[in-house]
Amino acid sequence: MNFNTWMEEKIKKTEEYLSNFVEVKDNPQKLIYEAMNYSLLSGGKRLRPVLLLGTYEMFREDDEAAMPFACAIEMIHTYSLIHDDLPAMDNDDYRRGRLSNHKKFGEAAAVLAGDGLLNKAFETGLKAALEYNIGTERAVKALLEIARSSGSDGMIGGQVVDMFGHEKISTVEDLKYMYSLKTGAIIKSSVIAGAILGGADEKELNALEIFAEKTGLAFQIEDDLLDVTGTIEKLGKATGSDEANNKITYLTFATIQEAKNEVSSLTAEAIKSLDVFGEKSVRLSELAGYLTSRDH
Amino acid sequence: MNFNTWMEEKIKKTEEYLSNFVEVKDNPQKLIYEAMNYSLLSGGKRLRPVLLLGTYEMFREDDEAAMPFACAIEMIHTYSLIHDDLPAMDNDDYRRGRLSNHKKFGEAAAVLAGDGLLNKAFETGLKAALEYNIGTERAVKALLEIARSSGSDGMIGGQVVDMFGHEKISTVEDLKYMYSLKTGAIIKSSVIAGAILGGADEKELNALEIFAEKTGLAFQIEDDLLDVTGTIEKLGKATGSDEANNKITYLTFATIQEAKNEVSSLTAEAIKSLDVFGEKSVRLSELAGYLTSRDH
Repeated sequence: MNFNTWMEEKIKKTEEYLSNFVEVKDNPQKLIYEAMNYSLLSGGKRLRPVLLLGTYEMFREDDEAAMPFACAIEMIHTYSLIHDDLPAMDNDDYRRGRLSNHKKFGEAAAVLAGDGLLNKAFETGLKAALEYNIGTERAVKALLEIARSSGSDGMIGGQVVDMFGHEKISTVEDLKYMYSLKTGAIIKSSVIAGAILGGADEKELNALEIFAEKTGLAFQIEDDLLDVTGTIEKLGKATGSDEANNKITYLTFATIQEAKNEVSSLTAEAIKSLDVFGEKSVRLSELAGYLTSRDH
Repeated sequence: MNFNTWMEEKIKKTEEYLSNFVEVKDNPQKLIYEAMNYSLLSGGKRLRPVLLLGTYEMFREDDEAAMPFACAIEMIHTYSLIHDDLPAMDNDDYRRGRLSNHKKFGEAAAVLAGDGLLNKAFETGLKAALEYNIGTERAVKALLEIARSSGSDGMIGGQVVDMFGHEKISTVEDLKYMYSLKTGAIIKSSVIAGAILGGADEKELNALEIFAEKTGLAFQIEDDLLDVTGTIEKLGKATGSDEANNKITYLTFATIQEAKNEVSSLTAEAIKSLDVFGEKSVRLSELAGYLTSRDH
């Protein structure tokens, strides 16, 4: 199977699973299910679930048991977008070419839909942990990685630095720290959770950590590049918004060519770190290339 | 030990534990720890943790192992208050006699502090599940109860009905449904999680479900009564606010005397349901009495 077909199949399967987690029941709180599903099923790129599944597949043949954890990560990613779009945060009216959650359902419902998805992520993971046939303990370890990566020392912490700490970002290292929290942490936990569920040993986990850190940073720099060089069709949002918002990005500290070179070398290093796995890591290598060259 | 001393000790221990979960590190995201702790350590009544610990104690002598789960519930309760207070929600400037989180830190930080506490609740519970010496599976089951009770078919669902579904509340049964989600679900999961962690059997869990449902409803009706009859000193917030806000409460459907009678009989039924435990349940009986007569 070639990479594109493999990727499409993973995305399709993830979306099938996602559509079953929030059942729209006809009860007085029906609005919350609708608001949650509106954003959850709005056709994102599903990169984080695919990363988890691609890693899991290096260790196990059937990805069925990993699906709830992949979906839990996507729920967390989705909730973060809903809250980020709120007027008090980034104040974005559109997301993925559609009205953002609060423009569609109002601010109160959007806050609650985000809360509901974060909560549902852990509910989904905990339920799966009890059913996970390779062991509840292993599942809890994977879920704990996800929890840490999405909290105040992960994604939420990164969002705080992005919103309130820009005056403290004076070097590219400061920026990389922020990126490692804001986007890097969950990309890393997608990989590590997949590996833990699959039964990776210490040495394999170490290699995958390096892979995930380098891929995550390359992905974020690529995102900064796309904001400058991309088109609205490719991104589903306005380009040049970082510059218009006076946002500090990688391009504050580097030229476009330097940034492109950095993405290339990070990607090469990420792929190199997979050597220990031999042939088994072909999907992850392809994924690293895919994530960091989204202009194709 | 008399009830008040017991209660004070549980609250003190809960607060000691709570103060250790969100470490304030001197890093660029420091603001998030401060915003989380501001609300978490603002001296609430800690009713939910005490309910969990009181139930756990019926089955185990030492409550140490149950503390992280008790604290996780308090984190969830606290996050819900932060988000409820937001301008787009109830728009409350004060909470527990202090500025509400968004008045102190701004709306964006308050949204993120709430998210951070919800996330931290599960991180705390998952970490404890791995360390729980009576078994990870039992701990996951308890945590799953908590997750369900706080989600879209629990507390968040209840908040949605309270905010958007008032035109659908035309009978006292509709109101009781909303209460069973908004406040009842977490009160119930506090009791049930404590029982699961302690190792309760099916029959004991059934008795405790009845206890928790009746106590939870009595607690909420008492809250409605206090809004009318209480003083600002006792509640830490303005009284008569429900009426001023045209809010539907139990007193929309009953007189003050009828509501008082209902609280009394629910409390008596709750205590009666504990008969199966004999002497062991004395703290829970006392707690039911305490929760439902807060005007003393």
